[in-house]
Amino acid sequence: MPTFNPVASLKGQSVASATQFSRADIDALIQLALDMKTHIEAGKTIDTLRGRVMTPLFFEDSSRTLTSFCAAMMRLGGSVVNFKVETSSVNKGETLQDTIRTLDSYSDVLVLRHAKEEALEQAMSVATHPIMNAGNGAGEHPTQALLDILTIHAELGAVDGIAIALIGDLKKGRTVHSLLKLLTHNFALRRVYLIAPAGLEMPAEVLEHVASDVLKRGIAIQQACGLTPEIVADCDVLYATRLQKERFIASAAGDADAMTAFEASKASLLIDKARLAHAKAKMIVMHPLPRVDELSSDIDDDPRAAYFRQMRYGLFMRMAILFSVLS
Amino acid sequence: MPTFNPVASLKGQSVASATQFSRADIDALIQLALDMKTHIEAGKTIDTLRGRVMTPLFFEDSSRTLTSFCAAMMRLGGSVVNFKVETSSVNKGETLQDTIRTLDSYSDVLVLRHAKEEALEQAMSVATHPIMNAGNGAGEHPTQALLDILTIHAELGAVDGIAIALIGDLKKGRTVHSLLKLLTHNFALRRVYLIAPAGLEMPAEVLEHVASDVLKRGIAIQQACGLTPEIVADCDVLYATRLQKERFIASAAGDADAMTAFEASKASLLIDKARLAHAKAKMIVMHPLPRVDELSSDIDDDPRAAYFRQMRYGLFMRMAILFSVLS
Amino acid sequence: MPTFNPVASLKGQSVASATQFSRADIDALIQLALDMKTHIEAGKTIDTLRGRVMTPLFFEDSSRTLTSFCAAMMRLGGSVVNFKVETSSVNKGETLQDTIRTLDSYSDVLVLRHAKEEALEQAMSVATHPIMNAGNGAGEHPTQALLDILTIHAELGAVDGIAIALIGDLKKGRTVHSLLKLLTHNFALRRVYLIAPAGLEMPAEVLEHVASDVLKRGIAIQQACGLTPEIVADCDVLYATRLQKERFIASAAGDADAMTAFEASKASLLIDKARLAHAKAKMIVMHPLPRVDELSSDIDDDPRAAYFRQMRYGLFMRMAILFSVLS
Repeated sequence: MPTFNPVASLKGQSVASATQFSRADIDALIQLALDMKTHIEAGKTIDTLRGRVMTPLFFEDSSRTLTSFCAAMMRLGGSVVNFKVETSSVNKGETLQDTIRTLDSYSDVLVLRHAKEEALEQAMSVATHPIMNAGNGAGEHPTQALLDILTIHAELGAVDGIAIALIGDLKKGRTVHSLLKLLTHNFALRRVYLIAPAGLEMPAEVLEHVASDVLKRGIAIQQACGLTPEIVADCDVLYATRLQKERFIASAAGDADAMTAFEASKASLLIDKARLAHAKAKMIVMHPLPRVDELSSDIDDDPRAAYFRQMRYGLFMRMAILFSVLS
Repeated sequence: MPTFNPVASLKGQSVASATQFSRADIDALIQLALDMKTHIEAGKTIDTLRGRVMTPLFFEDSSRTLTSFCAAMMRLGGSVVNFKVETSSVNKGETLQDTIRTLDSYSDVLVLRHAKEEALEQAMSVATHPIMNAGNGAGEHPTQALLDILTIHAELGAVDGIAIALIGDLKKGRTVHSLLKLLTHNFALRRVYLIAPAGLEMPAEVLEHVASDVLKRGIAIQQACGLTPEIVADCDVLYATRLQKERFIASAAGDADAMTAFEASKASLLIDKARLAHAKAKMIVMHPLPRVDELSSDIDDDPRAAYFRQMRYGLFMRMAILFSVLS
Repeated sequence: MPTFNPVASLKGQSVASATQFSRADIDALIQLALDMKTHIEAGKTIDTLRGRVMTPLFFEDSSRTLTSFCAAMMRLGGSVVNFKVETSSVNKGETLQDTIRTLDSYSDVLVLRHAKEEALEQAMSVATHPIMNAGNGAGEHPTQALLDILTIHAELGAVDGIAIALIGDLKKGRTVHSLLKLLTHNFALRRVYLIAPAGLEMPAEVLEHVASDVLKRGIAIQQACGLTPEIVADCDVLYATRLQKERFIASAAGDADAMTAFEASKASLLIDKARLAHAKAKMIVMHPLPRVDELSSDIDDDPRAAYFRQMRYGLFMRMAILFSVLS
């Protein structure tokens, strides 16, 4: 087996926020993930984490993130305890902290997904082993942001210098908040388009958070409510996110108005074959999936459709993280 | 560790249908399964598939098939991702194809059980890794048919030359359809009894499908609606299947009539100690399980009751298949 | 890897009852568990059970026991089949025995939790592999009793000579019944306090069961309905169990009376900082968890609070048991 280089600063650490990673950490994680991808795709295996135990606690469903973490642990030789929140002592009135202490007693690493932002901090305050944040409410989803950056790097050769459009519901989208922060803090982007329906724009506090980095790096930020041919033509990455009807209902006068607004937005944000006709030959379309109406299957076979490969990069990024944390 | 011989034609292939196997494949799978049985029962282990990941997608409950596949993968050294359909993105409107693409991104092999026959084809059209068909609606359940043949071979020494009775609801029974096709296509059976209640007979299309093989091999086919002493005495294999009350209700004038018909059928098909008194000393009783009323526990201790051993043969047949597909 | 010494008398045996263990067995299990703890906590791993398969059947929720057994098997190198009772053939009318036979066909060891006491005996009568009793109704929970004794030994240096208070609902508490039997049969305790609210006292049959051992060893038994400062001061172990409101309702004249009785009992049994002020410097507080109202989190950081470490001892005791049974 070749010697893989763990990212030393991660050893024994929790992964709580995308902001905890330096540019050097990110570059090292990308290299490690790509090394592991090469290794696995050559038909080889890794068993560095044999005898190590990971326990995921998903208080919110997210089967893509969950199965990705599980497969990552298993491909490193480790094992995964199948903890079911719905049949746990949570139902007997047990606190989150006591549940964490229990699983922490048996495990080498925990993976936590919770609807409440503060749950992560509560869990980390009592755990003696590292916790991987797999989404904490309106907070962060750092491994998603890291796998997105790996995808851009691997597909386009670099993250510096790109123009990227973040598209869809930018108000509630934890994924795009983390991604924007991580990108502007660490990479010299050329331009960022923020494309959202009225009422679902990127929150002011996120924009304020990235303001100094944007200024320092001279990143052009442009907001719009639809994907014009010019924007499509300029972008190296179109990053679409799920458009949910229920979000429109919350921000409209009535249900009928909401549906009208939803249909109009869908039409102006939809990524399909017609829209991609304006795009460069070398660019990628990304999406954290699941998709519903905002991403047409008529481009699935287009080589620029990177959203399925993106999931696979996720596997290797999580392998790189777990390997660095545990080995 | 001894060198096991994978069945070369299976390497990297999906297992979709019992009809994809040649007689040579079947013989080789039987030999491999028996070699593995000998090895495991001598207290030895196998870890050829260490670092490999299998993900089962069971859109329909079938805990026997599921646990058998899982144990088979684990006994080869591989790992199993616990994917739960009920908490997956299927609930967020994700298509089967996108769910398959996701799990295919993380896994070396998928195992699919689905209520719709066409699901298998849809899944295979987008997966880049092999898919094991664990039952596709009214379609097939090829690993069940293969384990049944392994059981007959291992218990009786040969499949050629036997007389077998398929007993119960032969109309809807996917298992007996696959088994009849596989047997008549590959083995020189002496005789086949098809024993079903009125209205639940083997469908005409299955009989047509096997007609040329039956003719070519000179297999005697005999239909009946009850297990007579003569039939019992002639058979090398009594293969019973589950008799479900609800199937009678569908084909009767009223509920009371249905219950009368059900009770009468049960009486004429039931395999118990009294009926087995007419059987040969060397023959076997099989059943895919679970059983309800058609198979009495009063023969559980009879050495001819092979239905519990049949499950164990299933483990080894699935080990042989996964080993051949993945190694 | 160092050579661990399995407890020879356990090889291939089911673990049904705490009473099946001799004092020599218990001492050997404690030593083995502590050896494994030292090994694992030094960052080393064990893979003696690689290729071995454990299947838990939990007909009753108990995620602490379940995850502890799973992690124990995985830390020995073994694998765990994720069998879900709720989607199994039990719903198709399958008997417990047939379900056991199925999983027994695929597995090297089963772990059974069932609400009915007789289920264990039924399961053992048809299984060909060992069964670990993880709680059989009003019956036993032997691995809990063993891990409790390991905790006392590891924390205090010895079990002989201690004074222990069993506190809470002693009437229905399977855990404290097993523990009392195991302790009095095998260890020269100095004193046992049985502290329960009126109506929830230790059953007469348990007291009769231990009577001859208590007499033989000269153990002082003292019953009370509250934790006095004198009792707290005398004890080496305060063993609290969960106090459930619903139990009071069953034994009171009305709901209001029940709540009054519950609140009074809680006040007189609660273990908190104030009560622990009377305790020795070297003593421990134990609890099988989950806790609700009877154990205050204000002592969580007190070094005498052993209940979180108790879970970790549980992991190592179950490793010692599985290792001895399977290797």
